[in-house]
Amino acid sequence: MIILNIFETVGTIAFAISGALVGMKKQLDFFGVLMLSVTTAVGGGILRDVIMGNTPPMALTDPKFCFISIISALGVWFFYKQLIKFKNIILIFDAIGLGVFTANGANMAFEGHYSSLFIAIFLGVLTGTGGGIIRDIFVQEIPMVFRKEIYATASILGVMAFYYTKAFVGAQIALYSCFIITLVVRLIAIKYDMNLPVNVLNQKEKEKFFN
Amino acid sequence: MIILNIFETVGTIAFAISGALVGMKKQLDFFGVLMLSVTTAVGGGILRDVIMGNTPPMALTDPKFCFISIISALGVWFFYKQLIKFKNIILIFDAIGLGVFTANGANMAFEGHYSSLFIAIFLGVLTGTGGGIIRDIFVQEIPMVFRKEIYATASILGVMAFYYTKAFVGAQIALYSCFIITLVVRLIAIKYDMNLPVNVLNQKEKEKFFN
Amino acid sequence: MIILNIFETVGTIAFAISGALVGMKKQLDFFGVLMLSVTTAVGGGILRDVIMGNTPPMALTDPKFCFISIISALGVWFFYKQLIKFKNIILIFDAIGLGVFTANGANMAFEGHYSSLFIAIFLGVLTGTGGGIIRDIFVQEIPMVFRKEIYATASILGVMAFYYTKAFVGAQIALYSCFIITLVVRLIAIKYDMNLPVNVLNQKEKEKFFN
Repeated sequence: MIILNIFETVGTIAFAISGALVGMKKQLDFFGVLMLSVTTAVGGGILRDVIMGNTPPMALTDPKFCFISIISALGVWFFYKQLIKFKNIILIFDAIGLGVFTANGANMAFEGHYSSLFIAIFLGVLTGTGGGIIRDIFVQEIPMVFRKEIYATASILGVMAFYYTKAFVGAQIALYSCFIITLVVRLIAIKYDMNLPVNVLNQKEKEKFFN
Repeated sequence: MIILNIFETVGTIAFAISGALVGMKKQLDFFGVLMLSVTTAVGGGILRDVIMGNTPPMALTDPKFCFISIISALGVWFFYKQLIKFKNIILIFDAIGLGVFTANGANMAFEGHYSSLFIAIFLGVLTGTGGGIIRDIFVQEIPMVFRKEIYATASILGVMAFYYTKAFVGAQIALYSCFIITLVVRLIAIKYDMNLPVNVLNQKEKEKFFN
Repeated sequence: MIILNIFETVGTIAFAISGALVGMKKQLDFFGVLMLSVTTAVGGGILRDVIMGNTPPMALTDPKFCFISIISALGVWFFYKQLIKFKNIILIFDAIGLGVFTANGANMAFEGHYSSLFIAIFLGVLTGTGGGIIRDIFVQEIPMVFRKEIYATASILGVMAFYYTKAFVGAQIALYSCFIITLVVRLIAIKYDMNLPVNVLNQKEKEKFFN
């Protein structure tokens, strides 16, 4: 799957850039920025592998994507002033990353002979969003994916596309449809600033529950 | 162990409700509330399984309790105004959950042929409190279990009850005694608002250590 | 390796003390202080073992270092007023801990037949700094190792010393050189208050990236 491989590289770079930028925003030092970049890019896959028992995780035995992350982080460190002009491109890269990593996780469910949609969604979403969750926890933010924008939802829809089409079109094409659905849903959400509903407790209700 | 199974469902629901409520308090979106609910309910068991090498974790291969959590979270999302009237019932449910999950973890030590009290306590406390720890980390709170109330202590006493009675009464009954001790200690702590001691550093001491 | 064993005990005590002190600073209760102490001392090793698939982790099957941590935490709890006089000694102990645990992790890469420098660095740094990262996340701080001082860098240099000397001097002596390099670099960093560079975004740049 050469095309997905190219996209995987693109997605890794985008995730690494997002981690490095957040690290710089939080004024981490040089090592911290590198680490945040690498964990954002490969953390979701490591979490997935550890939870599923595929140890040592692929990110360690084949550190290609770790090196790509480090190089990306170095780029951000030295050229962040230039990067600012490309904000929208970064968001698009990130959406590509979400799509690829979701397809990646869903594929692992398939290859691991886990037939349930539940596990496929779990693996797809975890691979796609886990790195960002670790990034946010490291810098003391509530994970973005829990708070705003259609993000995990795009992942879930992508996995469902994979799951329900693979019997008809084969796993290969189903993976591409997973990638494309995730990407397109995410891009639409970015373009129209779509958010999931938030159920706001009023002050009195908060006090009643938590004092 | 049909009765423990019923309690396990009750405990899962209580933990899921607590996760969903905390999520709503922190104004997470719909997906975030569902995720926080599920991780609170099954996170302790997943942590335990992953640390002990039982992968994929049971919560994934048998997702019954994940679905129970999602349904509970949906209930909270739509009916939280009604739930406020039942605050004490929720605390009691949560205590039941602590008791069941503690017994669950202790039992795993037993079945895994780990003979040490230390591992039994580790597994009991981790299963009982791990979900709440993940919940608190996700929403940027210092884990409640480290800060206030007799909570993990109830777990520890429950596991000790299991450990020291199982030779005399058999594992089955010892598990029930673990559950009951944990539950009763926790309920007493709630009723009398019992806390563990806190050793407060004064300002000068803090400065000396951390500048 | 009897000397490293002694140092391992010293390092465990130092890490446990640091965890207990941070716990008291954050006004955790008695259980919380014990837990933070133990996770700081053995958390890095547990993380490493779980990620590499050595489950259950050594810290559980051989709980010696857990008990050393608990005893250290009790000492801090009851005698912290006396400890304040020894702040520099604690920093030195902590540096010893960093050195030992780094050597420990690097050795595991060697014994696990992972021949890449990348995995050796990963395991060395994770074992040396993982406990402190968990400690900081538990008490809602951005992990210190990402923010200030030459800390992980000392680890990395130590592992490189191990990696490049072991063919010439044997694994045993290479481990000692790893320990000594890590320790000396860390002590120098403490003495001269050396930090890694921080790349500060100005307000306008922050707004451009994150709104």
